[in-house]
Amino acid sequence: MSVYLVGAGPGDPGLITVRGLDLVRTCDVLVHDRLAAAELVAEAPARAIVLGRERLRQAEIERLLVHHGRAGRRVVRLKGGDPFVFGRGGEEALALAAAGVPFEVVPGVSSISAVPAAAGIPVTHRGLASQLTIVAGHDASALDFRALAQARGTLVFFMALGELPRIVAGLISRGKPAGTPAAAISSGTTAAQRDVVAPLGELPAAAAGLDPPALVVVGEVVAVRTMLAESARAA
Amino acid sequence: MSVYLVGAGPGDPGLITVRGLDLVRTCDVLVHDRLAAAELVAEAPARAIVLGRERLRQAEIERLLVHHGRAGRRVVRLKGGDPFVFGRGGEEALALAAAGVPFEVVPGVSSISAVPAAAGIPVTHRGLASQLTIVAGHDASALDFRALAQARGTLVFFMALGELPRIVAGLISRGKPAGTPAAAISSGTTAAQRDVVAPLGELPAAAAGLDPPALVVVGEVVAVRTMLAESARAA
Repeated sequence: MSVYLVGAGPGDPGLITVRGLDLVRTCDVLVHDRLAAAELVAEAPARAIVLGRERLRQAEIERLLVHHGRAGRRVVRLKGGDPFVFGRGGEEALALAAAGVPFEVVPGVSSISAVPAAAGIPVTHRGLASQLTIVAGHDASALDFRALAQARGTLVFFMALGELPRIVAGLISRGKPAGTPAAAISSGTTAAQRDVVAPLGELPAAAAGLDPPALVVVGEVVAVRTMLAESARAA
Repeated sequence: MSVYLVGAGPGDPGLITVRGLDLVRTCDVLVHDRLAAAELVAEAPARAIVLGRERLRQAEIERLLVHHGRAGRRVVRLKGGDPFVFGRGGEEALALAAAGVPFEVVPGVSSISAVPAAAGIPVTHRGLASQLTIVAGHDASALDFRALAQARGTLVFFMALGELPRIVAGLISRGKPAGTPAAAISSGTTAAQRDVVAPLGELPAAAAGLDPPALVVVGEVVAVRTMLAESARAA
């Protein structure tokens, strides 16, 4: 095995997997994206070649992985979250397979449930939600709002902050109640985490001060956060 | 902090988080479920009280967490996957909050993407799927097949093996093409992993020999596995 596509987890460096950290600590080449925690990048050996995502286009990353992998180096491609959840890990895997370079995917904790959890929200909860829809929200015009408004359970939008007013309007126009509990969580699981909870119709105003990366959660499960807070106060 | 709801990850013990393993290694009480890897349970200190999930009902677990937490012990509740993805973590959190016991959720790698990844399937893939619906499949009669058949992107069913014939029939009767690529993966990420790929209509027969726990994936992303295999052969 020569190239490892490793999930760095949702932000908190303690949330990388044991295997992922072992690989970072023993790599020859580390190619990371900007969402991978600096503390994890710092775990690469001093002799390792470290390449940051910000300066690289996707095609260049794939060329680098193939090049160093073919040279027999131990290459770690460290990606925020999980490599296969909006992470383009599949494209990198295909590029490596086409080049005949052996690779392995080492999954990471995705933001899907970890970021809501850090805000006190379980994405599934007995009696409230046994279904979960995860959507990329960076282009509201690409979304099927009729289906999303009618989907059961919880909706989780990745990369939705910039399009939040259009997403909320789209959902409400297709019948999602404006009073549905909703939350936006910025930099979840890190020291910089900020989160807001509001009825869906008021979420764009409430979230106006947040910066990306952010996750948006819509559904009755958001009310568990309030239940937890009230239980803790009453106890 | 006294009680930690910790995700053990999808099966492979190396996929627990660094923080999760630290907590297991320093706990006074470990309450685990049957999906948490034996290798992780064995990491608890020799002096720790270790309680296995199989002998306990949910209400008893909650009583145990509250009891040991109130006594000031460092309690780890180790759950397969992620505590908040079909893990009843929200219920345990509410029980602890109601009792005034401080707790923290430490997320884990969910099977959502890790188990498909272990079978060569990315749950999202540029051009194939930018949406993902996750459903509990243990009771097919509770599912909204019309919406699921029309949902864009990838479908992931948890706990669906027992109901697979009914789930597949429900999807196809509501318009999901019988030729949609599909997979069933049993004991994903572990040495005991077995997986099958088949067109949706043939999946129940193909998966008949698999044992739980298993995940079922339906969608065009399943074809990436074939693309990876073909690329690797051609290279």
